Amino acid sequence: AIIVYRLPWTWKCSKLLMKFIHAGLNTIAMILAIVSMVAVFEFHNASNIPNMYSLHSWIGLTAVIFYSLQLFLGFAVFLLPFAPVPLREALMPIHVYSGLTIFATVIATALMGITEKLIFSLKNPAYSTSPPEATFVNCLGLLLVIFGALILWMASRPHWKRPPEENAKLLRPIGGTPEGTEEESTVTDGSNTDKSDMRINSEAARKNLKLDEAGQRSTM
Amino acid sequence: AIIVYRLPWTWKCSKLLMKFIHAGLNTIAMILAIVSMVAVFEFHNASNIPNMYSLHSWIGLTAVIFYSLQLFLGFAVFLLPFAPVPLREALMPIHVYSGLTIFATVIATALMGITEKLIFSLKNPAYSTSPPEATFVNCLGLLLVIFGALILWMASRPHWKRPPEENAKLLRPIGGTPEGTEEESTVTDGSNTDKSDMRINSEAARKNLKLDEAGQRSTM
Repeated sequence: AIIVYRLPWTWKCSKLLMKFIHAGLNTIAMILAIVSMVAVFEFHNASNIPNMYSLHSWIGLTAVIFYSLQLFLGFAVFLLPFAPVPLREALMPIHVYSGLTIFATVIATALMGITEKLIFSLKNPAYSTSPPEATFVNCLGLLLVIFGALILWMASRPHWKRPPEENAKLLRPIGGTPEGTEEESTVTDGSNTDKSDMRINSEAARKNLKLDEAGQRSTM
Repeated sequence: AIIVYRLPWTWKCSKLLMKFIHAGLNTIAMILAIVSMVAVFEFHNASNIPNMYSLHSWIGLTAVIFYSLQLFLGFAVFLLPFAPVPLREALMPIHVYSGLTIFATVIATALMGITEKLIFSLKNPAYSTSPPEATFVNCLGLLLVIFGALILWMASRPHWKRPPEENAKLLRPIGGTPEGTEEESTVTDGSNTDKSDMRINSEAARKNLKLDEAGQRSTM
């Protein structure tokens, strides 16, 4: 869900559709998180294991609470059409930051959960004797870290950001190049246009870019 | 070490001094990491505990290897004066990304280590019965996550970046305002200068900013 705006083949889809996909994937993840938490509590109760004693559970529950807040605020501010642009603009960097921080925290929680499970489940042979199962699950944990690092890389590269589309639509009548298919070209390539026109162009572009950042661009 | 460039009271210190502090703090951290790893291996060997079997150790060792690479590359490229500007420019986003990713991975490793230690050490009363020690150490783990989140927040806020100083020095002769004390003002406040001058100014500023990013600004 984090990287749906970073996939170049989706840049021709409308922003609203992409927002629905982003929100939809996160809603599915939230439902799965709730189902799995209910399963954990029921398993604990059925096996007479105390609930919420471990660091894994504390940090995991904190992450889920922040995740539900993030989902609710994201829905209310960025998906519903009522929030004014300045509010969206102010909340977007926070939304991006908390999204990535919650994601990193969830991976850390998963790694703690794996550690716990390996210690509790591998008794004969013990985890410390490195049976094949331990090596296998350790590899899974390492892959989880690599996965997290890749997602953070994709989410933080500025040139993998979705290009601002409304921007280009607004600029085309001013620049007088309706045949231009490359969206960015109207902003950067001003060699054939008048200098003053270009200045207006780039000023408008800067303004639109700023407004647009509130809707879809991140500052991370 | 990550946030030394984000402390406003250090912005009057020279960039080279700040680089030395950044490199020095990281070198101290690296030495402490090596000392503690030697201590762990000696403790394991003395207590007949196998080495490197847990996910904690795998991810921790990976993080330390990447950290030493990061330290060596950072020293060779950004501290020594030999690397050309384009190379610094290309490596800076990677340096910032790997620094933050290694930092997050180290926190995850610490959380796994805490989980392991609590399970192994608390036997009577067991960790699962939530003795005061377990609650106390869980709180420490939670504080560690909050600390990590705060550092990531400070490191990723664009307005907490160190302002580009050489930039202002280069611009002052062009703008013709040698009495200007506010560095940023020469770039943004062009109300008293000629329009064409301003255009040259902002173009120069953009160029310098780009060059400067290679030296000290992050793209995260």
